[in-house]
Amino acid sequence: MTASISKGVLEMINITFLPAEIVIQVPVGTSILQAAMLAGVQVVSTCGGKGSCGKCKVQLSTEIPVQITETEKKFLSASELAAGWVLACQHLLTQDRVVRSQEQKDVYERKTDFAGVQHIKVAPRVRKFFLQLSKPNVEDQTPDWERLMAALPVEGIQFNRTVAVSLPRVVRLGNFQITAVLDGDRLLAVEPGDTSGRSFGVAIDVGTTTVVVYLMDLNKGTVVASGAVTNPQQVFGADVISRITYAAGSPDQLRELQAKVISGLNGIVAQLCQEHGIARAEIYQAVVVGNTTMTHLFLGVDPTYLAPAPFIPVYRESVEVRASELGLDILETGTVIMLPNVAGYVGADTVGVMLAAEADRLAGVSLIVDIGTNGEIILCGRERILTCSAAAGPAFEGAEIKYGMRAAEGAIEGVRITEDVELDVIAGGKARGICGSGLIDAIAEMVKVGVIGPTGRFAGGPDQLAKLPALVRERLRRTERAGEFVLVWGKDSASGEDIVLTQKDIREMQLAKGAIMAGIMILVREMGITLQEIDRILLAGAFGNYIRKESAIGIGLLPSLPLEKVKTIGNAAGDGAKMALLSTEERARADSLVKRTEHMELSTKKEFQAEFIKGLDFKGVD
Amino acid sequence: MTASISKGVLEMINITFLPAEIVIQVPVGTSILQAAMLAGVQVVSTCGGKGSCGKCKVQLSTEIPVQITETEKKFLSASELAAGWVLACQHLLTQDRVVRSQEQKDVYERKTDFAGVQHIKVAPRVRKFFLQLSKPNVEDQTPDWERLMAALPVEGIQFNRTVAVSLPRVVRLGNFQITAVLDGDRLLAVEPGDTSGRSFGVAIDVGTTTVVVYLMDLNKGTVVASGAVTNPQQVFGADVISRITYAAGSPDQLRELQAKVISGLNGIVAQLCQEHGIARAEIYQAVVVGNTTMTHLFLGVDPTYLAPAPFIPVYRESVEVRASELGLDILETGTVIMLPNVAGYVGADTVGVMLAAEADRLAGVSLIVDIGTNGEIILCGRERILTCSAAAGPAFEGAEIKYGMRAAEGAIEGVRITEDVELDVIAGGKARGICGSGLIDAIAEMVKVGVIGPTGRFAGGPDQLAKLPALVRERLRRTERAGEFVLVWGKDSASGEDIVLTQKDIREMQLAKGAIMAGIMILVREMGITLQEIDRILLAGAFGNYIRKESAIGIGLLPSLPLEKVKTIGNAAGDGAKMALLSTEERARADSLVKRTEHMELSTKKEFQAEFIKGLDFKGVD
Repeated sequence: MTASISKGVLEMINITFLPAEIVIQVPVGTSILQAAMLAGVQVVSTCGGKGSCGKCKVQLSTEIPVQITETEKKFLSASELAAGWVLACQHLLTQDRVVRSQEQKDVYERKTDFAGVQHIKVAPRVRKFFLQLSKPNVEDQTPDWERLMAALPVEGIQFNRTVAVSLPRVVRLGNFQITAVLDGDRLLAVEPGDTSGRSFGVAIDVGTTTVVVYLMDLNKGTVVASGAVTNPQQVFGADVISRITYAAGSPDQLRELQAKVISGLNGIVAQLCQEHGIARAEIYQAVVVGNTTMTHLFLGVDPTYLAPAPFIPVYRESVEVRASELGLDILETGTVIMLPNVAGYVGADTVGVMLAAEADRLAGVSLIVDIGTNGEIILCGRERILTCSAAAGPAFEGAEIKYGMRAAEGAIEGVRITEDVELDVIAGGKARGICGSGLIDAIAEMVKVGVIGPTGRFAGGPDQLAKLPALVRERLRRTERAGEFVLVWGKDSASGEDIVLTQKDIREMQLAKGAIMAGIMILVREMGITLQEIDRILLAGAFGNYIRKESAIGIGLLPSLPLEKVKTIGNAAGDGAKMALLSTEERARADSLVKRTEHMELSTKKEFQAEFIKGLDFKGVD
Repeated sequence: MTASISKGVLEMINITFLPAEIVIQVPVGTSILQAAMLAGVQVVSTCGGKGSCGKCKVQLSTEIPVQITETEKKFLSASELAAGWVLACQHLLTQDRVVRSQEQKDVYERKTDFAGVQHIKVAPRVRKFFLQLSKPNVEDQTPDWERLMAALPVEGIQFNRTVAVSLPRVVRLGNFQITAVLDGDRLLAVEPGDTSGRSFGVAIDVGTTTVVVYLMDLNKGTVVASGAVTNPQQVFGADVISRITYAAGSPDQLRELQAKVISGLNGIVAQLCQEHGIARAEIYQAVVVGNTTMTHLFLGVDPTYLAPAPFIPVYRESVEVRASELGLDILETGTVIMLPNVAGYVGADTVGVMLAAEADRLAGVSLIVDIGTNGEIILCGRERILTCSAAAGPAFEGAEIKYGMRAAEGAIEGVRITEDVELDVIAGGKARGICGSGLIDAIAEMVKVGVIGPTGRFAGGPDQLAKLPALVRERLRRTERAGEFVLVWGKDSASGEDIVLTQKDIREMQLAKGAIMAGIMILVREMGITLQEIDRILLAGAFGNYIRKESAIGIGLLPSLPLEKVKTIGNAAGDGAKMALLSTEERARADSLVKRTEHMELSTKKEFQAEFIKGLDFKGVD
């Protein structure tokens, strides 16, 4: 009985493992358990094949009879035996066979308001192979590296110095039984003994404001844990342009920005690893999304020419680098995969959204909107995928708004105005400010009751004021510069100050939503359809999760479609990264999605200005 | 007129450049000069194609008539014009053509006692391409990386982060004219403007005792300069076993050894670069030879299991790593190519020797010997290449010898004994000690006059002593432990002390030469020939250069063949590294040489002990 794949001498047979559909050639006389290990198929065995744990259950088709052993009678029920269940350690393979391993949780489940539960078949590019190497002697002085290559069922592997450095030690520590970690045809690591049951990766979403890490179990296709921190580049400015400006200053400043974001990510990785008993060297791959500026800065490549027209990125297609090149604290030889960007202002995060929303598979016409500092807009259908980026500015994220804040504790996130103003405050305490969804809600309600007109101006004439409920009218007051509307009186606010919306705040929101709507209109026109021909609107991102759809439609941020056609899809950018990490097929889809995508550069569209101005009014658009 | 290779739009023609036989596709209307630059063919032009320098002479076949310009009449003679010489900047290509560039010094000349001058066609894997990139605008937002890829006449280039980091700056610094540096299909660097005239590499010979760097001009195929320093690992022991022992102590100690040798090499590189006005980033490739232990330590891979039987290396085949992984101070993305090893004690240095000696092309049977701490022996002919390594110990390098020293100033390098002792001392001053070639000479002469017998014992009986000339007899004296022979009286030595050869010194030499001869005998027997069927003996290495052939044959270190059959081939290991650096073909030959080589592990040969004992006597072996 031999566990090594010796080539040539022995008769070889083909063993197919279901449900993974992995086929492996092994010599006659290999046990099912060994074949499974060689194929990288996870079959649980805690006794190492001694027949004492009874855990390595697999199912054989019952057409070929097998001799049931006493051990199996001890561990398996009569009905299990009748159904073809056997213990993988008890049977030597003598002919081609199909073996079904116990149902693993090998689909990744993605839940959204939109698709219910989406199932992704888990088939990551990272694979682990448990190997028995031949032992050397004076007649066989084959070097360790060649011994390893001979045992691996994958050809064409290049020399990896980092693996070679410790290879002799690992090989002898494992008494010539080792587990090799492959990423495609790249050998990432060797580990002593059988570690095929443990395999991890990280999906990373580098946001301008927040960076998020999802630690994924690559065997099970589950999220082990996730963590987020503020992007430490924030100290160089809240928006991408200030970061580009800083990076353009000198190569050192560019490196500084890169180091910042990496250190933020490393902090999360360290914490997740510690909390879940995982070593960073067990994280073999990272898939990264982010807007084009963030992905450039993550890689440390110069984003200078993204800022001025014609907005030229350094790279666009999916690229891969070694973790050690970036200083990212996963296995140092591990691969960092950047999902492709579409253009200077439509980045890999949008590609993640397209992937998670299945932009290439949706029936009819879908409008997908991810609102942030930039509104990335995707219109897909009629065999086309169109994208554009509308510079909305930071208003939706609460910046440039007098009492604006991020959607955190104390933020007003919902507003209703009837006889007076009613508020929803995040976490329920006293209000500290107002976040993006609260702003949209507030403006929609203010327009509805007449505090502001559709042009965005505060009610001023006596007729206009007379129509307002008394308590509401009290809240509208003149200031030196313009009007303002008191959302919260000082006595009810956390700071004791009045929380107000100023005329300027309203103008900021107008500009922001006008830019988004202009982008939508240009894509719709390019596709040659009307707004009413859109079958669904999908809102991506945290912002999309929180806004009241009626309000967004009411103020003309989104087209006037029946509410049931508007769905949220959550953090779809991160979901896309997870999907690409768990499935080579999904990753390839990301590349093909980008190849099909037609990007519209709004600054070259002469109709943009007209659409923008049309979009400024606070009123429904159909 | 366009210098970019735009694909598809324009009609493409094939231009063949001789003598390099490089064929390139360019659009109709490309100038000959631009085509040459795109093809990486060096055509000298100092005015950049303005027609003012007259240097870019190339020759066209005269069948297709060309219109001679006034500029050409100014710079070219009537006979040149009649022979088809034109200025490359003056003519746009409109059809397939063959262009001959001026004869460059494109062969590398290797001079040895053995082959006279060997000519290697210079065709390094590193190539430079001068490119005109298309300029971006709002209608063409192609990223810089893709713009570069479109202009490069090589497909399938992978993303290189280090290049991408500075790409935007380099591209704009060169006003979209850049030179790309490729190593095969790896993009190593981009440089602003046209730098195709400058391209360098280093050939490195990592000896246990001395490390040598040859700085090579990859365009011209010449050695710009070379430098050597003592291997800084010396502080951990003079021989490979002490270094392996230290490295085996801990991963940190292994890293320490690696850092030592790299720092020694970096010191040489820095000095050569400074002296010759070359930037380290202009050194694009390194080819490294050394014994198996030294190449393992250079890479920082664990050599522990090279020391005990069965002497298992980590790797054997040629491997490549990035310079930055090792800390070697050449271009950080530059490739470091390790020539293959044969076995644990027949390393890449021996492969270099085989390459330089053309072991696969020599007529008849050749014995190639590289004597050092280990004697690497190659026997090639009869369609076979046999190798073995004989552990000679450090005696030939002067270690373990009472007054032994390296072949440096003050070393006795030649000895003749007639009525008295006559010496040759390196640099001519007073003697300080004796080096390996001096030792061999001294022993050969001592045997000849009867100071020692063939068994190595000092003359003792009155008969034996009586036969010695009086002045010689005076030099032979008894000591407490055994006899000793005074080579230099204190009054004539640098230190004032007598310089003597002890009985123990003689025994050390016996063991050393016995091991070498046993190795030779085992290879000869394996090939099924007699010593007299050897057509030539080639002596590699510094040692081989200096020993008196008669003496080496006289004491039985080499077989007794007519002197004219014994040739020296100099530092053939380093020459092999240079050849592999300058020519992809030579490098491939190194790999195929190793595949053909049959290595004999002497420790497994039961006849070794008998041969070793037979080889101990100081007498000719035929």
